[in-house]
Amino acid sequence: MNRRLIVGIDLGGTNLKCCLFDSGLRIKDRSSFSTKSFIDKERLIRGIAFSINNFIAKLDLSGRDIAGVGIGLPGPVDASRGLVHFLPNIKGWKEVKLKELLERQTGLKIFIDNDAKLMALAEHELGAAKGYRNALCITLGTGVGGGLIIGGSLYRGSDNAAGEIGHIPINERGPVCGCGSRGCLEAYVGNSRILKDARRIFGPGITLEKLSLMAKSRNTAAAAFWEKIGGRIGLALSGAVNLLNLDAVVIGGGVAGAGKVLLESVKRNIRLRAMSVQAKRVKVLRASLGNDAGMIGAACLVRDRILKGRC
Amino acid sequence: MNRRLIVGIDLGGTNLKCCLFDSGLRIKDRSSFSTKSFIDKERLIRGIAFSINNFIAKLDLSGRDIAGVGIGLPGPVDASRGLVHFLPNIKGWKEVKLKELLERQTGLKIFIDNDAKLMALAEHELGAAKGYRNALCITLGTGVGGGLIIGGSLYRGSDNAAGEIGHIPINERGPVCGCGSRGCLEAYVGNSRILKDARRIFGPGITLEKLSLMAKSRNTAAAAFWEKIGGRIGLALSGAVNLLNLDAVVIGGGVAGAGKVLLESVKRNIRLRAMSVQAKRVKVLRASLGNDAGMIGAACLVRDRILKGRC
Repeated sequence: MNRRLIVGIDLGGTNLKCCLFDSGLRIKDRSSFSTKSFIDKERLIRGIAFSINNFIAKLDLSGRDIAGVGIGLPGPVDASRGLVHFLPNIKGWKEVKLKELLERQTGLKIFIDNDAKLMALAEHELGAAKGYRNALCITLGTGVGGGLIIGGSLYRGSDNAAGEIGHIPINERGPVCGCGSRGCLEAYVGNSRILKDARRIFGPGITLEKLSLMAKSRNTAAAAFWEKIGGRIGLALSGAVNLLNLDAVVIGGGVAGAGKVLLESVKRNIRLRAMSVQAKRVKVLRASLGNDAGMIGAACLVRDRILKGRC
Repeated sequence: MNRRLIVGIDLGGTNLKCCLFDSGLRIKDRSSFSTKSFIDKERLIRGIAFSINNFIAKLDLSGRDIAGVGIGLPGPVDASRGLVHFLPNIKGWKEVKLKELLERQTGLKIFIDNDAKLMALAEHELGAAKGYRNALCITLGTGVGGGLIIGGSLYRGSDNAAGEIGHIPINERGPVCGCGSRGCLEAYVGNSRILKDARRIFGPGITLEKLSLMAKSRNTAAAAFWEKIGGRIGLALSGAVNLLNLDAVVIGGGVAGAGKVLLESVKRNIRLRAMSVQAKRVKVLRASLGNDAGMIGAACLVRDRILKGRC
């Protein structure tokens, strides 16, 4: 049998999610574990190897059936050397040679990359950004990440660190950001800041899920709250749109669940703020692959590198 | 004789500057006219044609010796159709088919583009950005323009409108900008805003040239003034550097004449604000081609399109 199956893995701060894909990127099997159930880095890496081997055992496959394994990680990664620099939300990861370690444990070809980049790759290959040559995908969560498609391909920048839309400053004297700077978009619309602001207005019992539901059932205060967040996202995106003259901006991640009111506010603020040619061109779209985007992107990475021979 | 000579033209709000280049982009002849001496658009276009024909007549050439003419324009341009959308600082230009008009008047192949993009092309081919794969060139003047080199080539964006670093917002409630938005970098560091601020501090007789000289001779107030401007440029650039993980940022245009104090402030603020990997990678450099950059870039455009057959 040809090596035609691909494993796509999304390692997040909350869950380790794995999918087995066929060569057409259709899902054949999936598994999920709580990331925190692995008590240290070594056990988490063994957990990843176990997840891969489990697919092979369950479906009575051999390692020869697997073309490769792609893994998305929530932090800066040296994709070409297979090195994880660090993971801000998972303890104990610093300069980990993940590719080498896992290739030794599984005997399979391993490819790793940053999760926001893989989400952009997935949305461009199969999701909302499909067919757009120049696009920015933004993921709204604890962190605010992003991935850029330029000229139809994932743009990595000089150190595979491009796409950090969360760290565009929108106010020179704004709040301190986790990156060490001030007034970055993430310092305004990262989940923890949103929740803090929400608690001040709606009381300590509020959650972002509740606040999304309230906006959907037309609670005026909740709608105004999300509109303000959309305004700030739109402000930062208008800068990126002016700089890059993009075809599309794709918005994904948990906060995007606030739905129409958020998306409309982002759209309105880009129209209001961006230059006329750029504003007229850009489509503002909701990500369409949901929670599977990271795994699909990881599988795309393997397919592009091995099956198509591309970088 | 082969068609090996190239005319490069830089049409600015102040001067119409023309150079005749050989195929190695060495300058063979040059001319300059005051843009305002042409009383309307038609006469200015005839002035461009005259400048070209003048080179041919002076050096006893024929039209056959000219491979093509490149023209940089201070506004949005549809480079592929040869159309000038409008010129914010030259009256009467709206949707002008400049390529078609000039090809009829001269019988030569005409290529046009935005001047900031051509400056970036020139700095990348022959100047400070040479050898860098991913670079942003920023021009500081009445407007704040820019051009992006991505993967070693000029990046145009979906409508040839990319590079507008001057319209990255750095403050959501900042001053109104000429583009219609608020708090853009240009609204803080465009020449007219700088001069207004300078007059408030240094009195009505101050000019930007004087202020540059004062900073160079270590006047503390003047140095602090330029440092603040460098801080804002550095702030906007840190966003671009985080988003694009650039190898180099090249700073040109009149205000860059403020020299070391401005450049050092830009560098310090990028180091302070940008994420560690991105900040470590990026070189902040002063443009090296000076006032000739636009003409050299226009000549590069012709060389790339005709002599090398590239787009």
